[in-house]
Amino acid sequence: MMSISFPEEVTIVEMLPRDGFQRFPRWVPTEEKIAIIDDLSRVGLPEIEVTSFTHPDVVPNLRDAEAVVSGITRRSDVVYRALVPNVIGTNRAIDAGIDKVNALITASPEYNRRNQNMTIDENLVVISEIIDIGHDSGLTVEAGIGMSFFSPYEGRIAKSQTLRIVEEVIGFGVDEVTLATSMGMANPVQVADVVSTIYRRFPDVDLGLHLHDTNGMSLANTIVAMQLGIRRFDCSIGGLGGGVILPDAMENIGNTPTEDLLNMLREMNVESGVDFEAIVTIARDTLTALDVPASSHVLMGGIPEVVLAQNR
Amino acid sequence: MMSISFPEEVTIVEMLPRDGFQRFPRWVPTEEKIAIIDDLSRVGLPEIEVTSFTHPDVVPNLRDAEAVVSGITRRSDVVYRALVPNVIGTNRAIDAGIDKVNALITASPEYNRRNQNMTIDENLVVISEIIDIGHDSGLTVEAGIGMSFFSPYEGRIAKSQTLRIVEEVIGFGVDEVTLATSMGMANPVQVADVVSTIYRRFPDVDLGLHLHDTNGMSLANTIVAMQLGIRRFDCSIGGLGGGVILPDAMENIGNTPTEDLLNMLREMNVESGVDFEAIVTIARDTLTALDVPASSHVLMGGIPEVVLAQNR
Repeated sequence: MMSISFPEEVTIVEMLPRDGFQRFPRWVPTEEKIAIIDDLSRVGLPEIEVTSFTHPDVVPNLRDAEAVVSGITRRSDVVYRALVPNVIGTNRAIDAGIDKVNALITASPEYNRRNQNMTIDENLVVISEIIDIGHDSGLTVEAGIGMSFFSPYEGRIAKSQTLRIVEEVIGFGVDEVTLATSMGMANPVQVADVVSTIYRRFPDVDLGLHLHDTNGMSLANTIVAMQLGIRRFDCSIGGLGGGVILPDAMENIGNTPTEDLLNMLREMNVESGVDFEAIVTIARDTLTALDVPASSHVLMGGIPEVVLAQNR
Repeated sequence: MMSISFPEEVTIVEMLPRDGFQRFPRWVPTEEKIAIIDDLSRVGLPEIEVTSFTHPDVVPNLRDAEAVVSGITRRSDVVYRALVPNVIGTNRAIDAGIDKVNALITASPEYNRRNQNMTIDENLVVISEIIDIGHDSGLTVEAGIGMSFFSPYEGRIAKSQTLRIVEEVIGFGVDEVTLATSMGMANPVQVADVVSTIYRRFPDVDLGLHLHDTNGMSLANTIVAMQLGIRRFDCSIGGLGGGVILPDAMENIGNTPTEDLLNMLREMNVESGVDFEAIVTIARDTLTALDVPASSHVLMGGIPEVVLAQNR
């Protein structure tokens, strides 16, 4: 008889300030970003990706990265992380005083060429430099491997391509590795295959998952990943984020919504340290302020409390 | 090292004609129902729940049960099943010439009292009669246990309550048992707990799952159930169905959408025998004809084909 077990606790990382805002259809004022990050800092989230140190022409929505980092009220129990695509961005992040950088590379040669303007080999050299520079300044460095499962140009990504990058960045001494599915096209079999292969080859790797929900499988993928040992998941308030190159109808479907992930975890008695009620309040207030319709199940009322109250 | 395996094939049961139409906001003409069922009969679906033999005052939308069953073009490779709440309905179903009945009971005393007008013990007697009558006429009889995990009145349902009903109906000689979550409030830990307990006590039971997606966990629950041995899943085109007593904002979130379940299965290389493209066409045409907005991930474009075509 097969039995299934889940971890007692997991770490969740809030992506709204970076992934949610980077392609948001309008400019979100710096003060609004700072207020949201300060709210997010007070609800038990262990880590927040607060911005991206990218060239302002490439991601104009996050051109205020320095102002955001200097404006927020830092708490000692929260890790403030930023995305960095290159050495210039890393130096800016260090100067701004960030705790941790998420160094970006993708497993898709074509996507890497078009969006990063580098071959994967060139990008790997950059990653090794970011790791060295970051470590010299006492930062934690994570490698975020975009398109780990699927590329909008090449389709499904061969496991060997993702594995090669994992192997290289581990060789460079990276602290953490995150497999990202910005296209939201991973499935439970593929996740199980890639993750279990990585753990077999690198049993000590600190591995995380950054899932998008384009195909509706992000919680199913999370379940499989938890069973295999993954304990760190990115997510975003209201599911905001991503939508890099997706069908129009999917503009409201981005990252795994933080509130939906948290709801599943609390229902499963998996501890995250995050205050569910407080996250729901932030999610509701934030989507209202941004004038974005609720698309997460929790915000539509898909929790026991709402169903029971409706029938009292 | 933990490893995860999934089945090579599963059976999916289409619920649209019954669960999708029973509380649909307007009357769907008999000819339209028949045309949809005939379309569904041609795409490889092994089983379709075509109607419910309920008192017409209780479910007026399905008051044409006899006309639907006599009007459809039956195929020998499709099982045509109907929901029956009592002996009268069972006799009507037999007279109409159905292949299989889904005998309804719930694990919630309060829900059973309000909606079935019986205590659970009274309902169990009825189920045993339905099984006998059905078997005498050569029908397959399934027991559909509603509220197996959560009730809108009592909240979470104790495993012992569901188990007691499973034990009784197996004792009566039922052919199949289906655990239903019409409230869509089950979670992977609870599903794993209930399902593995049932298999431990009744290793030979033919167990199926009828999931709704109110909390967004229906595919996650499916993944866990597949790992534990479940091979039969109910679903509904466009996710139509359910919404018994749910928050207003959730009116478009019902059963697991057939096209989303199928997409996950094909991506995982789990065989269902169902033609995915044909289902997507039926889903699109049906929702258009019914004037219902698409809420499934597949219909919004969350499949590799759409993403790749968009970026060619």
